Amino acid sequence: MASPEIETLTQALSRLPGLGPRSARRAVLHLLKKRESALDPLLRALEAVSERLATCSICGNVDTSDPCAVCADPRRDTRQLCVVEEVADLWALERSRLFPGKFHVLGGKLSALDGVRPEDLAIDSLVTRIAAGGVDEVVLAMNATLEGQTTAHYIAERLEGYPVRLTQLAHGLPVGGELDYLDEGTLAQALRARRPVA
Amino acid sequence: MASPEIETLTQALSRLPGLGPRSARRAVLHLLKKRESALDPLLRALEAVSERLATCSICGNVDTSDPCAVCADPRRDTRQLCVVEEVADLWALERSRLFPGKFHVLGGKLSALDGVRPEDLAIDSLVTRIAAGGVDEVVLAMNATLEGQTTAHYIAERLEGYPVRLTQLAHGLPVGGELDYLDEGTLAQALRARRPVA
Repeated sequence: MASPEIETLTQALSRLPGLGPRSARRAVLHLLKKRESALDPLLRALEAVSERLATCSICGNVDTSDPCAVCADPRRDTRQLCVVEEVADLWALERSRLFPGKFHVLGGKLSALDGVRPEDLAIDSLVTRIAAGGVDEVVLAMNATLEGQTTAHYIAERLEGYPVRLTQLAHGLPVGGELDYLDEGTLAQALRARRPVA
Repeated sequence: MASPEIETLTQALSRLPGLGPRSARRAVLHLLKKRESALDPLLRALEAVSERLATCSICGNVDTSDPCAVCADPRRDTRQLCVVEEVADLWALERSRLFPGKFHVLGGKLSALDGVRPEDLAIDSLVTRIAAGGVDEVVLAMNATLEGQTTAHYIAERLEGYPVRLTQLAHGLPVGGELDYLDEGTLAQALRARRPVA
């Protein structure tokens, strides 16, 4: 029924994560009805990003400049390097504003099932960055999944012999977590890593 | 952290219905990582729609042409006219492909609370269409809400004296509906409108 242009827009939107055909249609209707306040701003924002989109040649972050804003920031502590699986993880850590150092994005995790091998990830470039010196600590901030931890172990092996301290994120109870609802794996980790009461 | 361009895009997306800040961020990451398959197609689709977007001067539908595809379709039965509150309702009926006639979009419903008066809706233009003749039946396809039904009553009054048959959508059990879970209003309507078993 809708014109081919509107159909195409609905399909493009419905392929975004979190939007299905139904919500894409609602979004399109919203865009069509609010041309000045919704459609045009979205169009201009997409144009601006599309024009400048770049993958950072140092860390693998996606940004509108290369090097990215994090790598180009002179206030960052270059002695600390945080290794993450995906750009989304880098963004999540940046939102917390807790890590003062720089990042390295692997672009995925080792996975026998999905056929992801070490050479498919940005591991060689990580080793090159470490070999160049100047980094004291490497934080392996992989996801707390089997594949994430396998990836962390592999990277730890590859970085053996380099004068860097390897650390990983603590495992345990999430803030607000109730024992009754936690899985046994998390409980076991929290118990094993228990600390003296200050 | 993210560049201003990416921030602006995230905000533009998060204002779409069904997307919050979190899902907008996920969508932006998806767009940035899949430039060829996601960002560029969405950009081109928005451009195409933005260039041609028009509100149909006959029925009030939004489309990429004026008159819209429904009004311009010569196979449509011009003797049947379906009046709906919103463009979304027109699209919902079109998806079912059950109504062979034409449409009229009011652009809302009468509401004392929200201060929506008859002159705020496309009611005068509806009367003009009916007065021009050629329409046998007007289907008042308002929502089954208090305001929708008030709007339907008002339109029925305005169309008194014109030689058209006024009808409304049937009320009753939705397909797959279980009595136990239905509200009393729907049950009452279904009982009142009961029909002999064929």
